[in-house]
Amino acid sequence: MAHKTILVLLLLTLSTTTITTTTVHPLDPLTPDEITTVRSVISSSTPNASFHYVGLFEPDKPSVLAFVSPAPTPPPPHPRRAFAIIRADLASREIVVDLTNHSIISNVVYDGHGFPTITPAEDAEACELPMKYGPFVESVRERGLEMGDVVCSPMSVGWFGEGRGRRRRVSKLQFYYKGGTVNVYARPVEGVTVTVDLDRMVVVDFRDRVVVPVPKAEGTDYRSTEEEEEERRGEEIPGPGSRGISIEGHVVRWANWDFHVSFDARAGLVLSLASVADPERDESRLVLYKGHVSELFVPYMDPSEEWYYRTYLDAGEWGFGVSALPLKPGADCPARARFMDGFYARRDGMPVRVEKVFCVFQRYAGDVSWRHTEILIPGRVIREVRPEVSLVVRSVATVGNYDYIVDYEFMQSGTIKVQVGLTGILEVKASEHTHTNQISQDIHGTLIAENTIATYHDHFITYYLDLDIDGRRNSFVKAKMKTVRPGGDNNDGSSPRKSYWTIERETVKTEVEGMVSMSPAEPSELMLVNPNKKTRMGNVVGYRLIPKSAPAISLLSDDDYPQIRAGWTKNQVWVTAYDPSQRWAGGMYADQSQGDDNLVAWSRRNRSIENTDIVLWYTVGFHHIPCQEDFPVMPTLNGGFELRQTNFFERNILLKTPLPSIESDSCLSCRQSHNIITG
Amino acid sequence: MAHKTILVLLLLTLSTTTITTTTVHPLDPLTPDEITTVRSVISSSTPNASFHYVGLFEPDKPSVLAFVSPAPTPPPPHPRRAFAIIRADLASREIVVDLTNHSIISNVVYDGHGFPTITPAEDAEACELPMKYGPFVESVRERGLEMGDVVCSPMSVGWFGEGRGRRRRVSKLQFYYKGGTVNVYARPVEGVTVTVDLDRMVVVDFRDRVVVPVPKAEGTDYRSTEEEEEERRGEEIPGPGSRGISIEGHVVRWANWDFHVSFDARAGLVLSLASVADPERDESRLVLYKGHVSELFVPYMDPSEEWYYRTYLDAGEWGFGVSALPLKPGADCPARARFMDGFYARRDGMPVRVEKVFCVFQRYAGDVSWRHTEILIPGRVIREVRPEVSLVVRSVATVGNYDYIVDYEFMQSGTIKVQVGLTGILEVKASEHTHTNQISQDIHGTLIAENTIATYHDHFITYYLDLDIDGRRNSFVKAKMKTVRPGGDNNDGSSPRKSYWTIERETVKTEVEGMVSMSPAEPSELMLVNPNKKTRMGNVVGYRLIPKSAPAISLLSDDDYPQIRAGWTKNQVWVTAYDPSQRWAGGMYADQSQGDDNLVAWSRRNRSIENTDIVLWYTVGFHHIPCQEDFPVMPTLNGGFELRQTNFFERNILLKTPLPSIESDSCLSCRQSHNIITG
Repeated sequence: MAHKTILVLLLLTLSTTTITTTTVHPLDPLTPDEITTVRSVISSSTPNASFHYVGLFEPDKPSVLAFVSPAPTPPPPHPRRAFAIIRADLASREIVVDLTNHSIISNVVYDGHGFPTITPAEDAEACELPMKYGPFVESVRERGLEMGDVVCSPMSVGWFGEGRGRRRRVSKLQFYYKGGTVNVYARPVEGVTVTVDLDRMVVVDFRDRVVVPVPKAEGTDYRSTEEEEEERRGEEIPGPGSRGISIEGHVVRWANWDFHVSFDARAGLVLSLASVADPERDESRLVLYKGHVSELFVPYMDPSEEWYYRTYLDAGEWGFGVSALPLKPGADCPARARFMDGFYARRDGMPVRVEKVFCVFQRYAGDVSWRHTEILIPGRVIREVRPEVSLVVRSVATVGNYDYIVDYEFMQSGTIKVQVGLTGILEVKASEHTHTNQISQDIHGTLIAENTIATYHDHFITYYLDLDIDGRRNSFVKAKMKTVRPGGDNNDGSSPRKSYWTIERETVKTEVEGMVSMSPAEPSELMLVNPNKKTRMGNVVGYRLIPKSAPAISLLSDDDYPQIRAGWTKNQVWVTAYDPSQRWAGGMYADQSQGDDNLVAWSRRNRSIENTDIVLWYTVGFHHIPCQEDFPVMPTLNGGFELRQTNFFERNILLKTPLPSIESDSCLSCRQSHNIITG
Repeated sequence: MAHKTILVLLLLTLSTTTITTTTVHPLDPLTPDEITTVRSVISSSTPNASFHYVGLFEPDKPSVLAFVSPAPTPPPPHPRRAFAIIRADLASREIVVDLTNHSIISNVVYDGHGFPTITPAEDAEACELPMKYGPFVESVRERGLEMGDVVCSPMSVGWFGEGRGRRRRVSKLQFYYKGGTVNVYARPVEGVTVTVDLDRMVVVDFRDRVVVPVPKAEGTDYRSTEEEEEERRGEEIPGPGSRGISIEGHVVRWANWDFHVSFDARAGLVLSLASVADPERDESRLVLYKGHVSELFVPYMDPSEEWYYRTYLDAGEWGFGVSALPLKPGADCPARARFMDGFYARRDGMPVRVEKVFCVFQRYAGDVSWRHTEILIPGRVIREVRPEVSLVVRSVATVGNYDYIVDYEFMQSGTIKVQVGLTGILEVKASEHTHTNQISQDIHGTLIAENTIATYHDHFITYYLDLDIDGRRNSFVKAKMKTVRPGGDNNDGSSPRKSYWTIERETVKTEVEGMVSMSPAEPSELMLVNPNKKTRMGNVVGYRLIPKSAPAISLLSDDDYPQIRAGWTKNQVWVTAYDPSQRWAGGMYADQSQGDDNLVAWSRRNRSIENTDIVLWYTVGFHHIPCQEDFPVMPTLNGGFELRQTNFFERNILLKTPLPSIESDSCLSCRQSHNIITG
């Protein structure tokens, strides 16, 4: 009943679609036709396959770089291949399909821990089961609730030390009540848990542990009234536009930047080959080979039966791309933004189109890219100011209750700003309490409304950042700030100062040394550099990492199961040797993973990361103590970081980079005012 | 020669000006007439006074609150008084002037350490001295430089343990060379230091220690070429506008916010009485009684003779308001922003107008204030998204080489975002080096261009935040996140989880406990709450502090003199008992201060800060390792924090707060496209 219908409404299922691009870029995502091909090739040998992931099997880096290099000879043709993860006969299989020859290149069973992403179709089917399951129906009736108003939310179950024998794909269903509101997450039916085996699609466990009042519907709706809707109708919100943005296929060009944008079912928005023009060299220089959200870790802090296991790895368990939903022009993005679609495979292998899954727009927010007023020269005042105009690429993923707004902002200075915005609905617990003065013990959250506890939790958003600073061979450098005394420890009086800080530059040799837990007391500038390229002054070219929110780490104990699965969240920064198979911090099979194939496990190999192809992983973290203002829907809370040019260029390139032209963005209202002016 | 001329060009000197306001607000800054009154009243008794500060002597808080309270009885008339700091007969005096009676209320000599701000006129006069000083003229000639191209930059001298006997107001002059460029800071004449007694206006010391090549002019100019200028001419940059902003006198009203904006010679932009409408209570509720930049600490990390003392307290030594210069519409702020002027007293007491010293504009940057897509309800897709529209108040202070962009952004959610942007010109040291391979010892900076070392340094921007959350009596609460084991330390197996975090809420009793050094390993949510006001749920109303850049602390040793003066930079957060005389973190007399009258010294009294009027101090810090891209002018680097409603409201007020209407912001280009469309 539940999700299937929705998907049909929300997403258009396609059998034939063609994207009009002259040349297929080696990193272009699979077309609907290609997804269909994958399905038919795999189905011919495995008729009952359930498709958990279908995406591009990327050509290796040298081929991709050859394709985009400005070499005069035409690049070699790159094979189009797909990578699929399917479930069949209770096993997970990894299959590589040749899309040209319609053949299977490899087909292997995955026998390790963990399972592939859960598909929306499985969620929907699982949610149908309790509606016909006697004990559940009885529980609903005993609570005096209407069965027709009960909705179901499937939750991943995590891993809590279960041995190999108990390994099966299950989902725990929790229930909400839509009576009187669309804000279903605000009305939990607390205390009932239905566990479903997703492969066999049967109920395997049922618990009705405790009865708690369902929070009231009143005050939970977040929709506009009809009058408010009416007021806004026809009023186009002006704002930044898209003049100067060129999009050919999946390649975006704007001002001094060009990059490739791709959709992936697991990662969502994938940026590749981001290069910035160097006005002195008259060439485009590579900065970021690939960047995307790799994993999210969202542990809740309530140890009770219905809550202890809520320790989500959202990207691996559900797919951050599958969770990306269409953007609303004029609200999610400026009305005049450019929009792009995405495609992924349904459980049955058929392609699904997500319309307007990305937007691209030029931003002028009234800010200043650089300025100076000089009054030192007698008789003159020099005032030079340049407005900041940038390009934003955005996607929004709604993972159940939470909405994540993922932004990449390209600055003309060479900087890439990465921001994630948290909004949506809190995951709340029903409670008997209607006032804090009734509370005598830890409720593991904030009483944000009557009978409604918003549970403490964290969000850790981990980015995969395969920076290739001016080429593949890079090093990770920590410029550690160290306090020293002039003239040494004895302070020889050579300076009236008793201290200053200077830099100890450490080129990190191996992965274990590359883990960084940031601390204000021991600051370092963290850089990815190309040790083989220097500026004319002799400085090594690089980019540095600058947090734009307070660095955070997980507070769970090291022996706790969710922490074992998401161990990398104890440091903000990891640097690993490039391995194209290591893109998912929580492992390829994150659902019920056991921490043996994640960023921590790979790093234990302690590979060399000096002057080689390396990957930077940065985790933006939030500890969330909810407050009443997060109810019934949460105002966006932003965090992020920037990657900033550091001796990458010879100088500030803004001086030689023309400012893009900025159009006005609401000619609707402009025309009106024009009409008023001219009568 | 130098600065006097400039000031005449840049700033209009006024003898008569009236501001058209119906009622004088008790926090309105002094009018030019009032400044003139202060001058004439003080000059009548002290004819040779040098005016170092003239500003409003604020009525006490209860009077101000009575004025703005919606009580039906008319508020009592508030006296208009001015506070002045003058120098006369080698002494600093604090004088309170009654502006109604034109009389002196009090007049006391200040006998403590430190001196008042250095005036631009003193800087200009001091800079004339070396030009006629034989040994200096000889040094310039010996370097083969043209005297007419030498420009002078006066530097505050700090304090390095000198005893009381050596207390005199001096400034150290450093020199730059404008030959061939307007970027004078890029061309230091290294090695020469002229020390001037500012009271007696004589050279008291001269050193020519070392001769170093002056860096070349080539590549240092940051101005547009004539062609580039021409290209931009006539192209109005569109962007956010000012529809819906009401400014009456100094009171700004926009959407659900109202506040008072004032100019102060020391602080620059001062926000007062910021209140936000509560849609449930149909009243405006006070959040911030007063907020402004209190002090900047900018220590450089080179212990050599010409550099060791560069440990600026910019606001106290020069005046952050005096350093604020006119904003350029269409560049510093959107063309359609609203602009406000400021006035301060010159050294001779005459009022100086700074045109367009603030701007106020409505921002829509394409962002989302909240959103959610709900697919859990069978057969329906609910997608609600609201664009983020906010109000920005901006000022830019240029303290010599650096430009600080100071923004306060009011969000409709109730949040105030505070951002500081660093741009301008680096303070560089001339060097023999033209390539890093010539460097064999610590050069205390980065070789950013030939013969040019940009010295390592810090920026600590300390904000005075007299939050009065829903009233004057507030408390400071740390919600400390603590990891606990379910069932206690022995983990009784009641939960499969082995850990979670919960909150230990500590209401801070005294100032010493109120100091916070942030650490990712021991996170706390830091809140100012009103313990006397609760939500209907029983939560204490409050606002919390959220850093928007990595928290930083000073790395200087505790026994180093600059650190003694700016000791508060070892913590990011301080909370003090409200005392209207304690607004300047570095002390009222910051020039050559000795740390005995600063935020640290006041806090040592360890006053109670529980349920009383308290002040939050937050320091945004940057460790700056310069890079080549910071040359010849630095792309803006932002940092800041936000003050976010936390159980202040009963719920997310965005749902009940109408979105402001957003105009289109460039009807110039709109009209053009309209014309094209209609032929």
